[in-house]
Amino acid sequence: MPITRVQTDHFSIPLPVVLSDAMHGEMPSFELVTARIADEDGREGLGYTYVLGAGARAIHAVIEGDIAPVLVGRDADRIEATWKMLWWRLHYAGRGGLAMHALSAVDIALWDLVAQRTGLPLWRLLGGADPRVAAYAGGIDLQFTLDALLEQTDRNLANGFRAIKMKVGRDVLGEDVERVRAMRAHLGDDFPLMVDANMRWTVDAAIRAARAFRPFDLVWLEEPTIPEDFAGHARILAEGGVPVSAGENLHTLHDFQHMLAASGVSYIEPDVSNCGGITVWMKVAHMAEARNIPVTSHGVHDIHVHLLGAIPNASFLEVHGFGLERFIEHPLTVVDGHATAGNAPGHGIRFDWDGLEHHRA
Amino acid sequence: MPITRVQTDHFSIPLPVVLSDAMHGEMPSFELVTARIADEDGREGLGYTYVLGAGARAIHAVIEGDIAPVLVGRDADRIEATWKMLWWRLHYAGRGGLAMHALSAVDIALWDLVAQRTGLPLWRLLGGADPRVAAYAGGIDLQFTLDALLEQTDRNLANGFRAIKMKVGRDVLGEDVERVRAMRAHLGDDFPLMVDANMRWTVDAAIRAARAFRPFDLVWLEEPTIPEDFAGHARILAEGGVPVSAGENLHTLHDFQHMLAASGVSYIEPDVSNCGGITVWMKVAHMAEARNIPVTSHGVHDIHVHLLGAIPNASFLEVHGFGLERFIEHPLTVVDGHATAGNAPGHGIRFDWDGLEHHRA
Repeated sequence: MPITRVQTDHFSIPLPVVLSDAMHGEMPSFELVTARIADEDGREGLGYTYVLGAGARAIHAVIEGDIAPVLVGRDADRIEATWKMLWWRLHYAGRGGLAMHALSAVDIALWDLVAQRTGLPLWRLLGGADPRVAAYAGGIDLQFTLDALLEQTDRNLANGFRAIKMKVGRDVLGEDVERVRAMRAHLGDDFPLMVDANMRWTVDAAIRAARAFRPFDLVWLEEPTIPEDFAGHARILAEGGVPVSAGENLHTLHDFQHMLAASGVSYIEPDVSNCGGITVWMKVAHMAEARNIPVTSHGVHDIHVHLLGAIPNASFLEVHGFGLERFIEHPLTVVDGHATAGNAPGHGIRFDWDGLEHHRA
Repeated sequence: MPITRVQTDHFSIPLPVVLSDAMHGEMPSFELVTARIADEDGREGLGYTYVLGAGARAIHAVIEGDIAPVLVGRDADRIEATWKMLWWRLHYAGRGGLAMHALSAVDIALWDLVAQRTGLPLWRLLGGADPRVAAYAGGIDLQFTLDALLEQTDRNLANGFRAIKMKVGRDVLGEDVERVRAMRAHLGDDFPLMVDANMRWTVDAAIRAARAFRPFDLVWLEEPTIPEDFAGHARILAEGGVPVSAGENLHTLHDFQHMLAASGVSYIEPDVSNCGGITVWMKVAHMAEARNIPVTSHGVHDIHVHLLGAIPNASFLEVHGFGLERFIEHPLTVVDGHATAGNAPGHGIRFDWDGLEHHRA
C-alpha cells in the first residue's frame, strides 16, 4: 500500500502552568511536531514528537526536507525497511539527538497507519498483553512550595491516581529529603512514590541522595545522573540501595543496550517520541524482558498506554500531558490508578487541528 | 569581550567528482553550514560544519533559532561556560547527532575569535607541539575501477602525498583484497596505506576482512562496523590482527570515552566539525594521549592541521576537501607528505564568500 502524502506541522503550545525541573529550568511552553502520513486508500496515520525548549524547528526541517521526499511511493507496511533506510539517510547527521525525534514521529505515524488497516488497536497489534495499565502522575514540581506540592498531590488523588512521582535535585539535599518525607507522610505507607532527579547529580552525590531516601520506600529514583554514564548508573543502583530508572534521554537502540548491559537500571524508560518510535520502543521492551527488567514510559501517555498494554513486562505508565489533552478528542482518563488502552484501530488519537492551528509556530 | 553578532549560512556545494563509499551511496554534493561570530571589537571568528546528504537545513535552524539568540551579549572568551550552557539548552533534542554539528561550528568560531585576539595561530594557542603534520590522501573511491584508483593514486603521489587511504567494503571481500593487493604492489613496501570500510560489516565479517588484509601491512582499518558497538571494535582489533581506527561518527565526549575505555581502537579519529568543536576535540586528544593512543582526523583538514599541530600524540591528518579548497583563499598544501599549520592568528581560513554565494541553499 503506497504512501501518497507526508505532512508535518510545528505548534508551540503554552503550558497551563509554568513547570520546572533540575536541569531544564523553567518551561513556559512545549513544542509539538506532528507527522501525518496518508496511503493510497486515503487512510492517515498520525505521529508526533515534542521538545521543551530548543530543537523543534530543526526536527520539523528534518521531517519536511530529509524524510518526507523519500517516503512518498514507498510501501507503507514495510516499516523496518523504511526505518533502516531513514536511519542510514540521517546517519551522518543523526545517530541520536533530534534526528531521532523526527524519525520517531514518522515511525509512530506508520504504525498507526498499518494498525488502522488491520482494524486493530496498537496494543493488540503489538502483542495484546493487557490494556489496563497502572498509571502514575508525573509531577514537574521541583520549585513548587511544599504546600503547592501537597495540593497537587491531593488533586492527583482526586483524579484517580494511585501512584505519584515528584521531582528532586534541589540545591540542598536536606530540602529534597524533607519534601520526600512530607509526601510519604501525606500518602501513607505502601503508596507507590517515585522521585526524579533529571540528571542533576554526580554519581557519588546520587548515591548519597539514594541512601538518604532509603527510609521512604521509593519505587524508583529516576535519572540520578547523566544518561551517558552507564557504569555510574550501576554504581548508584548497587551502592545507593534504591531502585533506579532511566531512559527518556537515550535515543538509540544501542544506548539502551549499553544501559541494560551495564545493569544500570531497575526500570527502563524509553520514550516513543524520541527513541526512534514504536519500532525501537518495542525492541527495548523485549530486551528488557529478557533481562527481567520492567518497562515504564516517559510522557506521550496516549501512545504509551498502547505499548505498555502490548507487552508482558509493563510497569507504570507516566501521565503528564503538558496540557496536550486540551487538543485531543478523547484524552486518556485514569480510574482507580489505571489507564486503559482503547479499542479504536491504531492509537485512536484525534487532534483538534483547528484548536492547534491557533498555536502554529 | 561581548559577542555582538552571530550569522549562519547554508551552502550546497557540488562535488567536482561524484563520490561513493560503503554506506552513504553516491554523493553529488555536500552541504556546508557556516557560523560567523563577531565581538565588540569588530573581530569575526569563523566556524563551519558539513554533512553529506540529510540534515543541513536542520543544523542551520539550530544555529539560527536555538543558539544565535542566546549568544549575543555573552563573554566570547568563556567558551567552556558557553559550551555547557548550549549543551544543556540543546540537551533534550541533542546529545549527539545534528545538534552537535551545530554546536561544533559555533565552538570553532569562538576559538577562532579568541585566538585572533591573542594574535596566536590555533596550533600555538592550543599547545604548540609541531605545526608540521604528516598527511594522507583520503580517497572516496569504493566504486572506482582499479585503473581509476591507481590513476588517483598517481595524482596523489604527484601532489606530494606519502600516505594514502582507500575505501573497502565491496559486496565481495575478494574484490577488496585484490584492490588492496594492487595498491600495495603499486606503492611498494613500507608506504603507509590505510583502508576504510565506512561501517559496512558485522563484527565477524570485519575480523574475516582484517585477517585477509594482514599480508598487506596496513596502517589501519577504519570504521569496520557500526560506531555504537564499542566491544565489537575491541574484538575486531584483537582478533583481526590489524590496527583499527574510528571516531568520525562519535558525536559526544562520552562516546569517545566509551570507545577508548573498551580498547576498541588503535587510532582515535575525532572530527572537529561534528564532535562538539575544538573544545571536545582537544579533550578527546588528551584522553587518547593518556591511553597511549595516537590521534588522526576526519575531513576539515584546514582546521585539523592546527589541532594535530597542537598535541604531542598526533598521527596522520586526513586530507580530502570535497572541493572546498576552491572557496578558500590559501588552501592547505601538502609537501613531501606533510602539511604545515600557518602562523596567521586563529585558523587563518578565509572563505571566498562571493564564490560561496552562488551555492546558497
